[in-house]
Amino acid sequence: MHWLDEPHHDPSATYCDDSTPALGDLVPVRVRIPHAHRARQVVLRVLCDGEPLISTARLDREDETAAWWVAEVSVRNPIASYRFLLDGADGSYAWLNGTGRHLQDVTDAHDFRLIADPAIPAWAPDAVAYQVFPDRFARSSGTSPSSTAPARALPEWAVPTAWEAEPAAHGPLTGRQVFGGDLAGIAERLDHVAGLGADVLYLTPFFEGRSNHRYDAVTFDRVDPLLGGDDALAHLVRAAHARGIRVLGDLTTNHTGVGHEWFRAAQADAASTEAGFYSFSEHPNAYASWLDVPSLPKLDHSSPELRRRLIDGPGSTVRRWLSPPVALDGWRIDVANMTGRHGAHDRAHEVARAVRAAMAEQDAADGASRWLLAEHGHDASADLAALGWHGTMNYSAFTRPVWAWLTVPGHGISWLGMPLEVPSLPGGAMVATMRRFAAAMPWAALTRSVNPLDSHDTARFRTVVGGERSGRPTGSAAGRERHLLGLALQATLPGVPMIFAGDELGLTGCSGEHSRTPMPWDRADGVDGATLEAYRFWLRLRRRHIALRRGGLRWLQADDHSITYLREHPEQRLLVHLDRGGGRPVRLPRAGVGIGGSDRLQTLAGEEPDCEDERAVMLPYGQPTAHVYQL
Amino acid sequence: MHWLDEPHHDPSATYCDDSTPALGDLVPVRVRIPHAHRARQVVLRVLCDGEPLISTARLDREDETAAWWVAEVSVRNPIASYRFLLDGADGSYAWLNGTGRHLQDVTDAHDFRLIADPAIPAWAPDAVAYQVFPDRFARSSGTSPSSTAPARALPEWAVPTAWEAEPAAHGPLTGRQVFGGDLAGIAERLDHVAGLGADVLYLTPFFEGRSNHRYDAVTFDRVDPLLGGDDALAHLVRAAHARGIRVLGDLTTNHTGVGHEWFRAAQADAASTEAGFYSFSEHPNAYASWLDVPSLPKLDHSSPELRRRLIDGPGSTVRRWLSPPVALDGWRIDVANMTGRHGAHDRAHEVARAVRAAMAEQDAADGASRWLLAEHGHDASADLAALGWHGTMNYSAFTRPVWAWLTVPGHGISWLGMPLEVPSLPGGAMVATMRRFAAAMPWAALTRSVNPLDSHDTARFRTVVGGERSGRPTGSAAGRERHLLGLALQATLPGVPMIFAGDELGLTGCSGEHSRTPMPWDRADGVDGATLEAYRFWLRLRRRHIALRRGGLRWLQADDHSITYLREHPEQRLLVHLDRGGGRPVRLPRAGVGIGGSDRLQTLAGEEPDCEDERAVMLPYGQPTAHVYQL
Repeated sequence: MHWLDEPHHDPSATYCDDSTPALGDLVPVRVRIPHAHRARQVVLRVLCDGEPLISTARLDREDETAAWWVAEVSVRNPIASYRFLLDGADGSYAWLNGTGRHLQDVTDAHDFRLIADPAIPAWAPDAVAYQVFPDRFARSSGTSPSSTAPARALPEWAVPTAWEAEPAAHGPLTGRQVFGGDLAGIAERLDHVAGLGADVLYLTPFFEGRSNHRYDAVTFDRVDPLLGGDDALAHLVRAAHARGIRVLGDLTTNHTGVGHEWFRAAQADAASTEAGFYSFSEHPNAYASWLDVPSLPKLDHSSPELRRRLIDGPGSTVRRWLSPPVALDGWRIDVANMTGRHGAHDRAHEVARAVRAAMAEQDAADGASRWLLAEHGHDASADLAALGWHGTMNYSAFTRPVWAWLTVPGHGISWLGMPLEVPSLPGGAMVATMRRFAAAMPWAALTRSVNPLDSHDTARFRTVVGGERSGRPTGSAAGRERHLLGLALQATLPGVPMIFAGDELGLTGCSGEHSRTPMPWDRADGVDGATLEAYRFWLRLRRRHIALRRGGLRWLQADDHSITYLREHPEQRLLVHLDRGGGRPVRLPRAGVGIGGSDRLQTLAGEEPDCEDERAVMLPYGQPTAHVYQL
Repeated sequence: MHWLDEPHHDPSATYCDDSTPALGDLVPVRVRIPHAHRARQVVLRVLCDGEPLISTARLDREDETAAWWVAEVSVRNPIASYRFLLDGADGSYAWLNGTGRHLQDVTDAHDFRLIADPAIPAWAPDAVAYQVFPDRFARSSGTSPSSTAPARALPEWAVPTAWEAEPAAHGPLTGRQVFGGDLAGIAERLDHVAGLGADVLYLTPFFEGRSNHRYDAVTFDRVDPLLGGDDALAHLVRAAHARGIRVLGDLTTNHTGVGHEWFRAAQADAASTEAGFYSFSEHPNAYASWLDVPSLPKLDHSSPELRRRLIDGPGSTVRRWLSPPVALDGWRIDVANMTGRHGAHDRAHEVARAVRAAMAEQDAADGASRWLLAEHGHDASADLAALGWHGTMNYSAFTRPVWAWLTVPGHGISWLGMPLEVPSLPGGAMVATMRRFAAAMPWAALTRSVNPLDSHDTARFRTVVGGERSGRPTGSAAGRERHLLGLALQATLPGVPMIFAGDELGLTGCSGEHSRTPMPWDRADGVDGATLEAYRFWLRLRRRHIALRRGGLRWLQADDHSITYLREHPEQRLLVHLDRGGGRPVRLPRAGVGIGGSDRLQTLAGEEPDCEDERAVMLPYGQPTAHVYQL
């Protein structure tokens, strides 16, 4: 299937003057209409206070391939939702929204959307993020050698584990193995992070808990001494800032650990303030918890005092760690999709807005600009439209479709919580998924979401596409080709690439637990140099080319084995073509893409075009390769 | 295109035990999977507290054409949102949601949805509604003869108009012409309403205003004396109830008239309580209003006292008129889509929930069951999912697609607010539109929404499909065939048919204002008897056949000129086939539809099948006819 010669709009700079305007602004928006779809009029439809208002666009200019129409969106609400009606010169009737052209009426779900919020972080779309699970990244110098158990005195629940050991994939050891990574260890290895081109460091929880993952915090007031305590965190953030790297923390707003000081006070006294922070069906031992896991009691956000302590009071958890001496640059919110939702009650949007507002107040106080990222494993569009979370971990629009396109069946890796193996789907299915999920999100939220190939909650991407599942650091080349295609998608699609530490070394793992592999710093044989080199190349490419970070996205074609898209920015237009291996020849007519007859493509990655003539460009095919061309 | 042999589910009784369960229920849901799509497993995905939970269905039974799988939806939240994953025996991967089968991941927008709300009116899906614009329905006996101006003393704004006159289509007369219909006149003509088979009477506003439409109320405490006052309304409701007809009022929660007692108090004193009911940018003469029309100042629902007086206090507008002596059976809410929305603030869902809650309290107090219907001209899905309005005026999923399929171009009627004529679209476009909009709504809301062919806000359907636009009562046959196809769609699709008074007589009109035609009671030549007879036939058919009122909806095929669908209920299965004229032969394989080889179709409307053999049924074609068969 192909979308050459299709009319196009997206809220990037080529087509829209400002995707994050102020309330009251008039924002020019442009549509490119190839001559094959010549319009007699173009109508802009904007929702205003819940009512569709209509205005007609004017023909701005025509070039050899297309006409450009322009209209103005009046931004009267915090989300300005709009789309276009193309009244065809041939009498055809079509709506243009984020999923393309439709020959009948469409719902508002895929309207283009501008976000009027002055506090949204302008820098986020340019970022490259790096995710670290603190126990598994690095032991600081002076702590025990890697071949031994960690030196620090360990709490009762912990099972000391040698750095080289394979993490347990399931069973009682999973939350208890402590490998001894710490915050000072991360600070010592920031050169590695910076060397990759990453400028955001996302740390999974650092509050003291009763597990190695710490999603069961016993306090929000203290960094786990096992990780080095508050001072180590402050030192790490300072060291990161000195390198231009921002740091995100990880906060569980959905629940605490059963050992949390609030929960202990709640259990001790049914009349306590803290008892109102949780939902007891029978005090003290029957209460709501995350997926009915009793060690993770669920917070009840109807409590104003909880709201004050956790979110928006002076010295609240949210605010305190964004302030000196630690001064984080934002939060990733754990289980954001469930936060505030329980049975008959749904306070999810209230909570998300309160967190955003508290962060915006911090921003206003110190002039910084912070990022609020939601964990959300399925369709986050309704939550993002509520203007709480700035963006999400985009498993739906990125991770899942990429896995399905690049997986090599037979590895037995489960389909992210479903009782089947990752399905193997054609390129058209990947594009359709990406398009629908992305179109359901405001552009400003899409470009402030992260695109992970995997995370501490999933199998490693290298295993999904290569089958290698030793769980130990390995330099195996199995799956490298397809792994690097996934990397190329991260580097060239809208949204912030998020690298789970170790992916750049080719590490493997068959489940979330199993993928929390300690970094093999001391094993030259444990890394795949070609993979690391490719990470540096692709992330550098992204940082150097504004169209990759801020350009629009125009899909050109997809078949089973190859996909092609444009990233367009007023300063630069890039053509991206990926073949997963086995792709057929793809001929791009210059007119459909909008390449002048005499312009030559400049190859930035992959191979030169097979041939170019005055009418068309033939793309290379058949080999698993990612190609990027500047037009 | 066709959908024979497609897997199917919808939340009707054949496939779902209860589309309006209680919180905590486990609801069995069934999927029919034709053998062509044999599954190795079927997975049910239910959102619970915002998290997708997974369970596997079991194979319940197999018949000659399909397998039936069953699973249970655990209703943990007020909306239980679910869909199915079909893990194909051939390795295929597909999701089944309200828009059908998808070979890749889908967003949650078209998940099936159950509504856990005990107060939702159980009777509404069986209703047939009849809309009356009180000034234009009937003058009561004893008032002036129709050829003269109304007898009652008229206010200054009113322009007395003879009953037979043509309503002004535009210009200053539109809101001012008073034809003199009154509530007692409606009561005298209830036999006509009952004779059509309607059992819900929806009255556009009866509160005193400064216009003939009264959407500019000067009070919510008094029925307009021009209509006969409070007593006349109480009498009308009693008379209607005596015939088994329920009555809905029409309330403007979005705005009042500039002459409303609240607004006058607000303008008189910036410090008054009422000043807080509106949004003044500069007191007293600059204020927010509906689409910036100064005579309709917009209500500001942040005022608790407004909430109390209008919605939920004792004796509030909402509650008072639902109680004796008047005792309405529900409200249609004007401009529901804009209510509570203004600039940076969006209280729309709060307001809708407050109205629903106030009505539910009335229900609990007197054991009645009331209906809350929202005016919403575009995509109402997000508002309906907020569990405020029970249903909507389904212009999006019904009126617009039906207009586009049945219009005869060249009449110059505008496309419901867009600057173009109604587009002429093929059957596939109509089905695609209906399917997407319907799937975006909970089934319980779809079946509690009304399907209008037109209303007091649009051109008459007869004009859209016939071109006749005299505006006077006319018995012209022009457009009758297509008009009756629209009627057949009203009578056979899910959702409550709503008849705008006069449609059943074949009246015409080229705009909302122009369509507010007085009923031509005294003109034998002013009505189209064949149309009236058809209304009685189709509405009787609906009332007699439970599958038309409560059955599921399975689309079978659509081409440019014909469409075919099944309405399935445990007690009855009906096949509906419409040809707009020019349709091609349609052959339905018995296996695809699920008709036994020896079963004969029983014709309930239209013509016998062209032929039937053991394998297939050939439907009649080519003529503009609606056919209904019992399987």
